[in-house]
Amino acid sequence: MAISLRHLIVGSPLRTAEQAHQRLTKTKALAIFSSDNLSSVAYATEEILLVLVVAGTAAIKLSMPIAFVITGLLVIVATSYYQTIHGYPSGGGAYIVAHENLGVWPGLVAAAALLIDYVLTVSVSITAGIVAITSAVPELLPWRVHLCLLGILIIAWGNLRGVRESGTMFATPTYMFIVIFLMLLMAGLFQLAMGSLSSVAVAPSPAEGGGAEALTTLLVLRAFASGCTALTGVEAISNGVQAFQKPEAVNAGKTLIIMAALLGTMFLGTTFLARTLGITPMEQESVVSQIGRQVFGSGVLYLALQAATAMILILAANTAFADFPRLSSILARDGYAPRQLANLGDRLVFSNGIAALAVLAAILIIIFNGRTHGLIPLYAVGVFLAFTLSQAGMVYHWYKTQERGWLLKAAINGFGAVATGVVLCVEVDSKFTHGAWIIVLLVPALVLLFRSVHSHYLDMREQVSLQEGEVGHWSQLGVAKPHKVVVPISGLNRGSLAALQFSRSLSDDVTAVVVDVDTAATERLRESWKAWGFDIPLVVLESPYRSVVRPLFAYLEETDRREPERGLAVVILPEIVPARWWQNLLHNQTTLLLKAVLLFRQERHSAPRVVINVPYRLRQ
Amino acid sequence: MAISLRHLIVGSPLRTAEQAHQRLTKTKALAIFSSDNLSSVAYATEEILLVLVVAGTAAIKLSMPIAFVITGLLVIVATSYYQTIHGYPSGGGAYIVAHENLGVWPGLVAAAALLIDYVLTVSVSITAGIVAITSAVPELLPWRVHLCLLGILIIAWGNLRGVRESGTMFATPTYMFIVIFLMLLMAGLFQLAMGSLSSVAVAPSPAEGGGAEALTTLLVLRAFASGCTALTGVEAISNGVQAFQKPEAVNAGKTLIIMAALLGTMFLGTTFLARTLGITPMEQESVVSQIGRQVFGSGVLYLALQAATAMILILAANTAFADFPRLSSILARDGYAPRQLANLGDRLVFSNGIAALAVLAAILIIIFNGRTHGLIPLYAVGVFLAFTLSQAGMVYHWYKTQERGWLLKAAINGFGAVATGVVLCVEVDSKFTHGAWIIVLLVPALVLLFRSVHSHYLDMREQVSLQEGEVGHWSQLGVAKPHKVVVPISGLNRGSLAALQFSRSLSDDVTAVVVDVDTAATERLRESWKAWGFDIPLVVLESPYRSVVRPLFAYLEETDRREPERGLAVVILPEIVPARWWQNLLHNQTTLLLKAVLLFRQERHSAPRVVINVPYRLRQ
Repeated sequence: MAISLRHLIVGSPLRTAEQAHQRLTKTKALAIFSSDNLSSVAYATEEILLVLVVAGTAAIKLSMPIAFVITGLLVIVATSYYQTIHGYPSGGGAYIVAHENLGVWPGLVAAAALLIDYVLTVSVSITAGIVAITSAVPELLPWRVHLCLLGILIIAWGNLRGVRESGTMFATPTYMFIVIFLMLLMAGLFQLAMGSLSSVAVAPSPAEGGGAEALTTLLVLRAFASGCTALTGVEAISNGVQAFQKPEAVNAGKTLIIMAALLGTMFLGTTFLARTLGITPMEQESVVSQIGRQVFGSGVLYLALQAATAMILILAANTAFADFPRLSSILARDGYAPRQLANLGDRLVFSNGIAALAVLAAILIIIFNGRTHGLIPLYAVGVFLAFTLSQAGMVYHWYKTQERGWLLKAAINGFGAVATGVVLCVEVDSKFTHGAWIIVLLVPALVLLFRSVHSHYLDMREQVSLQEGEVGHWSQLGVAKPHKVVVPISGLNRGSLAALQFSRSLSDDVTAVVVDVDTAATERLRESWKAWGFDIPLVVLESPYRSVVRPLFAYLEETDRREPERGLAVVILPEIVPARWWQNLLHNQTTLLLKAVLLFRQERHSAPRVVINVPYRLRQ
Repeated sequence: MAISLRHLIVGSPLRTAEQAHQRLTKTKALAIFSSDNLSSVAYATEEILLVLVVAGTAAIKLSMPIAFVITGLLVIVATSYYQTIHGYPSGGGAYIVAHENLGVWPGLVAAAALLIDYVLTVSVSITAGIVAITSAVPELLPWRVHLCLLGILIIAWGNLRGVRESGTMFATPTYMFIVIFLMLLMAGLFQLAMGSLSSVAVAPSPAEGGGAEALTTLLVLRAFASGCTALTGVEAISNGVQAFQKPEAVNAGKTLIIMAALLGTMFLGTTFLARTLGITPMEQESVVSQIGRQVFGSGVLYLALQAATAMILILAANTAFADFPRLSSILARDGYAPRQLANLGDRLVFSNGIAALAVLAAILIIIFNGRTHGLIPLYAVGVFLAFTLSQAGMVYHWYKTQERGWLLKAAINGFGAVATGVVLCVEVDSKFTHGAWIIVLLVPALVLLFRSVHSHYLDMREQVSLQEGEVGHWSQLGVAKPHKVVVPISGLNRGSLAALQFSRSLSDDVTAVVVDVDTAATERLRESWKAWGFDIPLVVLESPYRSVVRPLFAYLEETDRREPERGLAVVILPEIVPARWWQNLLHNQTTLLLKAVLLFRQERHSAPRVVINVPYRLRQ
């Protein structure tokens, strides 16, 4: 029943052979790979303003210069990645580039940074997407967190079904967003030029003129760092070069240029309109929504803008649901992450990675109460760390190839690495106390985790695997000698009788054990034991603290130690198997606990023991 | 390590013999049993106002008459319970009284109603307690839900440690609340009389005068129903008569009268002040907080009021943490709820019940976004259902005893039953669409659940137990014949070798099985199988969908069916036991899944099978 339920929800399983590689046209590829990047215009300007506004409304004027610097940085990063596309036409994620060119440690640092940022991409995009909705429908504001969680659930569900293949699904919302956003900018500029839109002078109002804080360099740097979230997602195309039609690298490069141009235009335009219209960030309504209301009014076009914004942000979260499981499966294959992350599920997707990402993003959203602004200081740090390592890796790549013009290429990537490295320092420094410290702690922690998982797998292989070329012979191993058998029972019933019967087919050295938690019941057991004429000794264990597990465990330890000649005790557990799954909640708790303790508890002197479950089936 | 961690958090285990019964003075008993009841003045008035205010501020005048009716009802209910105390000096919870006098079904209905209401008591009290805090410190408002969950966590933790015995812990906050609340009322009335407190005339303001809705009878009834939440907790003393010093019933009765008098005074006083000061309910600040600010200013006394309110509300939640586990353990002992709810934990508390209550209350708080107001329509329905059944049961109880004056006593309880029954109808009817429908569905659902658990336990006993007086003889049962053994392996390593060795000590009919998910690995296994000279056949199973479990399961089913003469297959699972617990996350997923499927999946033709775990321990 559980299986058919799963098929209903996730879909029926797909054969391994059905794994196909679909090639994308530039139009579709732009839609798929740009949603993460372009969607950031929905919040990047707002985050700049939110930092500046604490120094008073006058400081908001600085938003334009900051936006220009960020756009310049965009040009540098895009040029760098244009080269990565041509250098790694098979797909050059930061982990692969850093791992291959700079070594294991930088590779793992890049992987840690990317995994963290994928989680943040989901959290930031979903919360911002929900803000787009609650800006239009303020009644939904109190349900912000619930809506975010619902959004994650839907995306995770779609990805578990294997939604990723459909480029068509992405095309409509992405192009709708691009079109309506460009319309917004043009209509805004046109109305400003015609004077029909009131250009509010950004003058210090009496209430907030001075601002709560002074306009320090640190504040300006923090505004810049917050705005740099606009650059997240630029790397997406370089990861997916293989998805393009031939010639892959050429097509991917062209798509990257188009994406960067669109992003630059939209980001600068939004910032200009926000500044000129004198918009200040508000708790209840996003900056883009405020611009939309002033330019479009509150009609259909405004609602379409909000809908398109929400949709592209949700698609951006969706791209992380493709990237995170893919990267974690690569890490798992290399032995740095738990193996089950590399399992292809029924639907040919990395189901465990999808589930892990959904849970982590949901936890972040709950902790930060569904507020984009709280998450921003954590965001982008990882992206710029990955940028820097990836560009630095490319420099070494060009040096190794020594192909024609390698010096210029290395110089371009080197400049990119230095620029993103400087921004990384700014990110960490200016936002450190606002949350970036979490990332500074988390990246090395994750890297250490990767390493210890790796060394555990290596250790295990060494201990469990037969050595290269080691061939023994089965007949020399000999049969394990018969063991003594212990059967814990709580009373005499058909379940314990079945277990006792099975025990005799295994060994002649059988002991039944009962833990005395109910003196009357134990006495009854003793009597019927005599009446049934068992030739098996019955041992009664005291339990002053009402625990069944601890006295039993102590008994096993003790007999093994005292009479080693009888071998290690094999434990036979009678188990009730009910006719319906929910009835399991009503049974077997002690058996479950006992199994867990026998398996996991590890005293110095105890070896793990063989545990045998003898089930007794209920008919109803 | 997990065990010592638990001892650190929950405390070291207590012996069964340490279970002592502490007798309480009236002073301490009042503190312990009244917190649930008295704390409701923190929200009852506000809930009346919240309903009335939708019909405009003028409608708020009706709050006084409604409060008088509720106080009258309080007198009736308290008188009824005064009799219950004397009729059931051993403790007469609604479940016991209804079960003994009216039969199984009414008893279960009362139990369901009470369990639901205990969950709501926790949710409502905690959210209202957090409102008392956020009213004083509005900065904490966005973290409302987080604070509620933290509160539940702390209370659950205290109860798992066995906090209940300390009457001292209750005395200080409860009496502090009573004293400061009476001070508030007196100071308020005094200032009103002296004219130093501005008595705002409740006149319709232009904005809200008319109100959004008409002042219908239904609205008034809903206000009354919401205010009836003040009566929750009146029954607490009758459940705990045995905790009083001798003569128990007399002392308990006196305590009940004091509690009812205090509640009546405080509730009427709050409502009068709120109405006279023209206070309207607000989202950000509680009504009591508003009264406090007007009477006390914003100084130390105001903060003490808010602190005492928050504390007594949290204590009220705490009483539910004693009641819910106790009632569910009684139900479990009677076979109506899962048995593990009756387990006394290490610290002599019903740990599972405590955990269940914490989880359910937390879910409610998350669903209702930490808002008391959303929960109120669900609350009190269960209480009045339990009141009615309990009083009706008492009528029959007096009829059975026929003791001196039984007719008068039966009449008093009968009047109580009718009064609470009428209120129950009002509760359900007036709040039905606001959430009471959930309770109307939930109570019968829970009762059916109790019944099906009960009949399952009965069925099981019949199937598993040896019949009364059934005595066979062990020697006649015979030893189970040897079975065929199947060992699923993924490759040849020390773990699978250990399992194969063990298999030979069990049977001569052993088959090794490998599922072909990686063709190259399967080929290597085939080769080393030959090299090792195994006399055990190796079967390779195809798996087009990459599943390990399904082909294996199908193979077992098929061989069992095709060759019944070889017996039911016993499955031996090799299992890696790592040196540290966290490393389990890196292993054994397939083994776990396989075990679960073998145990739970039940095809028509398959019997449950014996599963043997042969562990192989890693050294590091």
